[in-house]
Amino acid sequence: MKNCVIASTSTLFGGSYLDYLLNALSELYKDTDEILFIPYARPSGISHDEYTAKASEAFQQIDKQVVGIHTFSDPLDALKKTTGVFTGGGNTFLLVSQLYKHAMMQPLRMAILNGLPYLGTSAGSNICGLTMQTTNDMPIVYPPSFKTLGIVPFNINPHYLDPISNSEHMGETRETRINEFHTQNTVPVVGLREGSWLRATNHEIILKGDLSARVFEQNKSAIELGPGTNFARLFV
Amino acid sequence: MKNCVIASTSTLFGGSYLDYLLNALSELYKDTDEILFIPYARPSGISHDEYTAKASEAFQQIDKQVVGIHTFSDPLDALKKTTGVFTGGGNTFLLVSQLYKHAMMQPLRMAILNGLPYLGTSAGSNICGLTMQTTNDMPIVYPPSFKTLGIVPFNINPHYLDPISNSEHMGETRETRINEFHTQNTVPVVGLREGSWLRATNHEIILKGDLSARVFEQNKSAIELGPGTNFARLFV
Repeated sequence: MKNCVIASTSTLFGGSYLDYLLNALSELYKDTDEILFIPYARPSGISHDEYTAKASEAFQQIDKQVVGIHTFSDPLDALKKTTGVFTGGGNTFLLVSQLYKHAMMQPLRMAILNGLPYLGTSAGSNICGLTMQTTNDMPIVYPPSFKTLGIVPFNINPHYLDPISNSEHMGETRETRINEFHTQNTVPVVGLREGSWLRATNHEIILKGDLSARVFEQNKSAIELGPGTNFARLFV
Repeated sequence: MKNCVIASTSTLFGGSYLDYLLNALSELYKDTDEILFIPYARPSGISHDEYTAKASEAFQQIDKQVVGIHTFSDPLDALKKTTGVFTGGGNTFLLVSQLYKHAMMQPLRMAILNGLPYLGTSAGSNICGLTMQTTNDMPIVYPPSFKTLGIVPFNINPHYLDPISNSEHMGETRETRINEFHTQNTVPVVGLREGSWLRATNHEIILKGDLSARVFEQNKSAIELGPGTNFARLFV
């Protein structure tokens, strides 16, 4: 039993924080008024308080209260008691390090597998994969492990980016990076473009939004799968 | 005593492998005919042999032989005997993992500090910094440490990329990523644009090429420093 929204990005170009997801979030959190926010990824280095205020402002639009997990003296107890969680984006290495530091990876995983409504955006989605090894982020801290929640049976590449036409930059494209991952790993990778999210409920993992996702498996050519695809049936 | 060329990229847009560096490399390797190549970073997953052949072809233009370190049963002995080293680009996590696996990080560091001519491109330059934590690469393997050679007293961001104007992508810019690094670390970062390299000799680390480098220090605004700048005098 799962009840998750796993989104590529929190914010679309020209949009405001979480706005394009509000309908999906009203449904996800329909049985809770208060959401426990995990701000550990600290995008651009903003503080836990600032980040929580930003999430709070967005959730006011659907009448939900947001409380930061950093405000609890016992965050594991807060996790145990909550009826809804949201992990925001930022730096995945920092997020994963903090989750391990607070011994939260396994309890969070078990809570989600037991049905706790969960929203992840960007880094918060990346950790829903088996490992964080298809993150786009810089390794600004050294986490004790790259293993993550394993809520879905594959890895996620959020903010998936197609090659930029006419670019004269010689750095690797996203696809090249994911192919390099597959020289060392067998785990499938789902590249989620901005505007896409996965809706995981019970035994389904459905691609939502208007765009296709790009799917990479070891020793296969990448393929595009459209909205409505059930990713729970793939890779088995 | 150092004698290094630390280059942002191996290849410029529209150019061929190492061509823009050949004059600098003739000087770097003037006292050696054979270069020991470290192919561990495996760009796009190519094999050690394929990668060595590519390096070999480029160095034929300046009459140098190239031999891959992977062809030796005792790579540390090969390192001890060589009179010139080149570490190619690819995936920095893989490169660093392999250097630790072969117990090569410290011997390579000592050899370079004792004057062994060294060329690094991309990942091979990234490891000249104090840590690999400003790499652009995906964490496709888990290295035992992020600490690297520390040949220069700062970190390097190769393939430094300015924000793309009119981009509607919401992923972080390179500058944002480096600023996130500085929320957790005090080490200065030099962003080397493609076409730039650092020439480290004795007590100088001079910026070469036509472009400026972008320099990031914790709690300071980023600045641009032009060709000819001596980076050995900064950050002290």
